[in-house]
Amino acid sequence: MKKKTTAPPSLKRNNKKRPVILITNDDGVTSSGIRNLVEAVKDLGKIIVVAPDKPQSGMGHAITIGQPLRLQKIQTDDDSVETWSCTGTPVDCVKLAVDKILRSKPDLCLSGINHGANHSINVIYSGTMSAAVEAAIESIPSVGFSLLDFSIEADFSGAKKYARIIVQHLLKQKLDKHMVLNVNVPAVPEIQIKGIKVCRQAYAKYIEDFIERNDPHGRRYYWLTGEFVNFDKGKDTDVWALDHNYVSVVPVQFDLTNYKLKSKFEKIWK
Amino acid sequence: MKKKTTAPPSLKRNNKKRPVILITNDDGVTSSGIRNLVEAVKDLGKIIVVAPDKPQSGMGHAITIGQPLRLQKIQTDDDSVETWSCTGTPVDCVKLAVDKILRSKPDLCLSGINHGANHSINVIYSGTMSAAVEAAIESIPSVGFSLLDFSIEADFSGAKKYARIIVQHLLKQKLDKHMVLNVNVPAVPEIQIKGIKVCRQAYAKYIEDFIERNDPHGRRYYWLTGEFVNFDKGKDTDVWALDHNYVSVVPVQFDLTNYKLKSKFEKIWK
Repeated sequence: MKKKTTAPPSLKRNNKKRPVILITNDDGVTSSGIRNLVEAVKDLGKIIVVAPDKPQSGMGHAITIGQPLRLQKIQTDDDSVETWSCTGTPVDCVKLAVDKILRSKPDLCLSGINHGANHSINVIYSGTMSAAVEAAIESIPSVGFSLLDFSIEADFSGAKKYARIIVQHLLKQKLDKHMVLNVNVPAVPEIQIKGIKVCRQAYAKYIEDFIERNDPHGRRYYWLTGEFVNFDKGKDTDVWALDHNYVSVVPVQFDLTNYKLKSKFEKIWK
Repeated sequence: MKKKTTAPPSLKRNNKKRPVILITNDDGVTSSGIRNLVEAVKDLGKIIVVAPDKPQSGMGHAITIGQPLRLQKIQTDDDSVETWSCTGTPVDCVKLAVDKILRSKPDLCLSGINHGANHSINVIYSGTMSAAVEAAIESIPSVGFSLLDFSIEADFSGAKKYARIIVQHLLKQKLDKHMVLNVNVPAVPEIQIKGIKVCRQAYAKYIEDFIERNDPHGRRYYWLTGEFVNFDKGKDTDVWALDHNYVSVVPVQFDLTNYKLKSKFEKIWK
């Protein structure tokens, strides 16, 4: 009987090509959220950062059609991380990174860490999450990370810790190429975080309330604001998990077909 | 036994309040697509048009956070239709229309008729469809209409006919308040359209190919282009239906949870 010749585990690991990780966000290339994400995972692979040159919150899945885009290589303190600034939206960043910088698909795309929540309906408005979804459309497994704290001095230690745990886990798996995870981290000291909960997206929305004012020339203008309301009392939702100090993980898809309504309408239009 | 006293059908119909229909789009308030949609349905209810003041294609679910918005009432040839122009995105238009113009929820929101396809993955980039989705988030049943023809002189007769058929049908029903229908119409003469097919969203995507040029000052720029590729061979998809001269109807949802992946990850993070 022929003996199998397999390399010892350590050698196997050394032989393995380092995974390529594309990192982007919607708060811009200089935000502390993206710097914290890079720090959390930079020894886990070859990191390429391609992120917007200015804040792009609330850009959803917008792409730039009517204008040209620019890319600029950025000098950072850390030479080991190639960093690019892009004039486009978060989704543009992913498209340009793959087509013009990497010129091949990275093993993983990470987006964030977003300054502020992207749980529940926020997923649909969020540039951070739309960048992750765009990666998944392009067959690159991806994760968006958000911390429930808008402040510039936010404490990212819990978010960094869990980002690293999740990325380490994913890099060991054979991943669904269209995988997107929406990870939100509660704004509490790291020690108070109870762990990770896999959830569904809560049904919640913003009750709009535009601020209505006149400009110095007497012309009326409106400024979007709104109150977040959670209509979903389920204990399996992201909002519930975050309220109870868990990191929420919602797997996200880009097939938007409502199959339940599809069955209903099939009876009407055969 | 007490006799039921119900009004005769004709009286019932007369007594019924006229439905309020909000119409928006992403090609802008002056586009021929939106004018055709208004014409197709204007006798079916009280029509209010609130649409962007400039083209907003590819804006996805973007909202305007960092800037104020303006609304302007527009004079049109038809006094019976109240028309407003808005400086924001298609999603902003829906939010502002409900909060500041209607000050209550309309019975139905229609978006389009879009100049160009919004089938398959286009649904996620489309301002037209995002406006419809926003309405549904706000508990307003909605339909987005798109014609597979980009040209300004496109023939909207088939799209108008089917928009009217669909809206007439919906106005007779008790609708799911979160209903969104993505309706696409093939670019063929009306007589060649075979009817309506209820479909799922095809798995298709754009293979990006940015045009790379230097500007007059020698600086590199990139311009998004790309080839549409349908990877989905199913005969139950919107792309299939349109290829076979059917009007495709895909019910759309805004719960993006991937329940299949959720079950998988629940085994890992309990």
